[in-house]
Amino acid sequence: MTSVRLGFIGLGTVGCGTLTILRDNAALLAQRTGCHITVSVAAVRDLSRPRTCDTQGIRLVDDPIAVATAQDVDVVVELMGGTGLAVEVVRAAINAGKHVITANKALLAEHGNALLSLAETKGVMVAFEASVAGGIPIIKALKEGLSGNQINWVAGIINGTCNYMLTEMAKPGKDFAPVLKEAQRLGYAEAEPSFDIDGIDASHKLAILASVAFGVPLSRQGMLIEGITMVTAADIAWADNLGYKIKSLGIARRRASGIELRVQSALVPKSKLLANVDDVMNAVMVNGNAVGTTLYSGAGAGGMPTGSAVVADIVDVCIAMRSGQVTRPALGVPMNALAALPILPSSQIQTAYYLRLDVTDAPGVLAKISAELANEGISIEEMRQQPDSEKSAATLVLLTNVVEESAFMRALAKIAALTDLRSPVAWLRVEHLS
Amino acid sequence: MTSVRLGFIGLGTVGCGTLTILRDNAALLAQRTGCHITVSVAAVRDLSRPRTCDTQGIRLVDDPIAVATAQDVDVVVELMGGTGLAVEVVRAAINAGKHVITANKALLAEHGNALLSLAETKGVMVAFEASVAGGIPIIKALKEGLSGNQINWVAGIINGTCNYMLTEMAKPGKDFAPVLKEAQRLGYAEAEPSFDIDGIDASHKLAILASVAFGVPLSRQGMLIEGITMVTAADIAWADNLGYKIKSLGIARRRASGIELRVQSALVPKSKLLANVDDVMNAVMVNGNAVGTTLYSGAGAGGMPTGSAVVADIVDVCIAMRSGQVTRPALGVPMNALAALPILPSSQIQTAYYLRLDVTDAPGVLAKISAELANEGISIEEMRQQPDSEKSAATLVLLTNVVEESAFMRALAKIAALTDLRSPVAWLRVEHLS
Repeated sequence: MTSVRLGFIGLGTVGCGTLTILRDNAALLAQRTGCHITVSVAAVRDLSRPRTCDTQGIRLVDDPIAVATAQDVDVVVELMGGTGLAVEVVRAAINAGKHVITANKALLAEHGNALLSLAETKGVMVAFEASVAGGIPIIKALKEGLSGNQINWVAGIINGTCNYMLTEMAKPGKDFAPVLKEAQRLGYAEAEPSFDIDGIDASHKLAILASVAFGVPLSRQGMLIEGITMVTAADIAWADNLGYKIKSLGIARRRASGIELRVQSALVPKSKLLANVDDVMNAVMVNGNAVGTTLYSGAGAGGMPTGSAVVADIVDVCIAMRSGQVTRPALGVPMNALAALPILPSSQIQTAYYLRLDVTDAPGVLAKISAELANEGISIEEMRQQPDSEKSAATLVLLTNVVEESAFMRALAKIAALTDLRSPVAWLRVEHLS
Repeated sequence: MTSVRLGFIGLGTVGCGTLTILRDNAALLAQRTGCHITVSVAAVRDLSRPRTCDTQGIRLVDDPIAVATAQDVDVVVELMGGTGLAVEVVRAAINAGKHVITANKALLAEHGNALLSLAETKGVMVAFEASVAGGIPIIKALKEGLSGNQINWVAGIINGTCNYMLTEMAKPGKDFAPVLKEAQRLGYAEAEPSFDIDGIDASHKLAILASVAFGVPLSRQGMLIEGITMVTAADIAWADNLGYKIKSLGIARRRASGIELRVQSALVPKSKLLANVDDVMNAVMVNGNAVGTTLYSGAGAGGMPTGSAVVADIVDVCIAMRSGQVTRPALGVPMNALAALPILPSSQIQTAYYLRLDVTDAPGVLAKISAELANEGISIEEMRQQPDSEKSAATLVLLTNVVEESAFMRALAKIAALTDLRSPVAWLRVEHLS
């Protein structure tokens, strides 16, 4: 039996979840891998702090580099996070000829190309199933399960905090601020929530998804990154009325001229499964040129679900170690075969739009608004009009056809300048996901 | 570049879909595998029939065994179906030291153990992603993506014909017979539809799912196999009223005492994504002890989606050929490590039930019915009562708690004997999938 010795860096929620799985399912893992898997050492930040999981038999140290270069470690499991020390640690591990498993999406999005190129040169694996969508095996689905396809697009709910908040905001009487407070109380949002609600976390994950889906370098350059802070309970209610739910999506779409890469809040038809993925759950839709559209859903965070993904990578690495070679490139194709497809500027995005307008004298203004849209070749697909309690005022809600964002923005600027508006125009993108 | 030469057996819908993908995505596949993939030969039933896809450069023969043993074939792609000649062909291929890729669920369910054992002895791969749920990479998800988990249960919509029919029957004025006719007209159901609507096709797929999920031998022995012929539009409407949809499910559940294996029509809460998988789409829910519940959905049939799964297997086989060894056992664990867990008799199934009763004098009879249920320890979780147009007659609809099927059957027999019934009791299982 091949012996595989792991070195952990970080024993927080995911580290402890992973250790628990390795212990609980040890017999099964031995059968599945044909390997004897042990954990030699783990680096933790504070050696004096009591551990939340059983670390018996594991040497604890406070120097991550020591784990990355330890004699009795074959595979480094990097769960410390961040893009500071983690970069040094992963580089040191690769240079020491060790395979690396990481859940660190920021590390991959920011430094992935250099690290994966180095790993390829050194003949070691870097596996990162846990970096996107927690326990959902979406990286494996894209790289392997759908390997026969050219991927056309990927669209996913890849941030549980945003999905929880948008789900809650659909309930009566809940708006952004109190829902954020509740999410923080439940531990779904950080005290400083910007990383989640401004779309940063999702942008890291989207960079990874796009890279594996399209065989392009890891990058957020040119990516449109919007959060959920512009979404109001009023828009969620209007979307519902129109047959849509509002979701925070990461979208990567291949077009003839390049790739659309965007993190945004958007209306999704309720008829799509993705619209029905609620609370902290994650899901990713993938459209391939052979398979059509498939969807993968599950828990996007948590120690055990994310640990499940880490252990799947451990199994893959063990099996590769038994065969004595790295057989599948980290991003699906070799680093030198990555395609430098251009990332399209947001002005070239093609999508549909939702507009909510608070206007005086609705009948007159509707003609002006439709004219501004029509001037840019934009047609109105659906319309709702609701008189306000106050006379000669109304809310107008419009859904447009699919147009180029530059055209929409020109029309929007003209509409925003109309004197009949009582407050700024609210607008969101509409994704039909087909 | 490693050269990989394929031999096809069968060039029907899936065979042609697979060939089309191999041609359309050839450059991508070369990058992903590092292999030069060619198709040397294909066996077809009738050489004189015009082909529906481009077979240029492929030698066509009418003897499948000749393909299985051809000198210029490394991998046999068996898409002929059935359990007659296909068994001989696959055995011959394995004996000739060739890897086998098959979409043949009946072959695997009926002869899989012997064939996979032989393949293990001969050191060749047998890959079968296309045998269950078409293009959805569910075999890979179970075997690899969730390899860190002990799987607790799997529940899937794995027959598109049944799902299409149940979806249609939910529309006003549609019942079983006309919907079946429509399905036949659209090519979703065969002229002799029994294979699909009696659950046979799903039973083959469930045997494969259970085997990969639990590491048990491939078998349908003791499996409960029911179709959709007992489902009426009336039950679908009542289920809707109660917040459920009726779906035809394959369920495999690990319990302390053994495994439940059942193909059945059941009520599923609308709040579950699975309930919202409609038309010919397939989906499989998987619950693992680390990841919790995940779901995989997509097209369960069709030449291109199923071809996508076949090509994913081709990629895996190519990569294994490059490494020079078979590294992952066909069923996730070696054949000699398969666990002989008992299949529980249907009397030991644990689930909830839906009952629809057409009764005279409703108030009096409800007391008798509740008493018979209570005698077996069954409680009523929900109840609907609708007076018939005729006086002193009513429809009673009940949902029970989760009980053992033997208890339910005893109560059902007593209830069926009541003189107040105007027609036989309609009943279905209710699956909460949690």
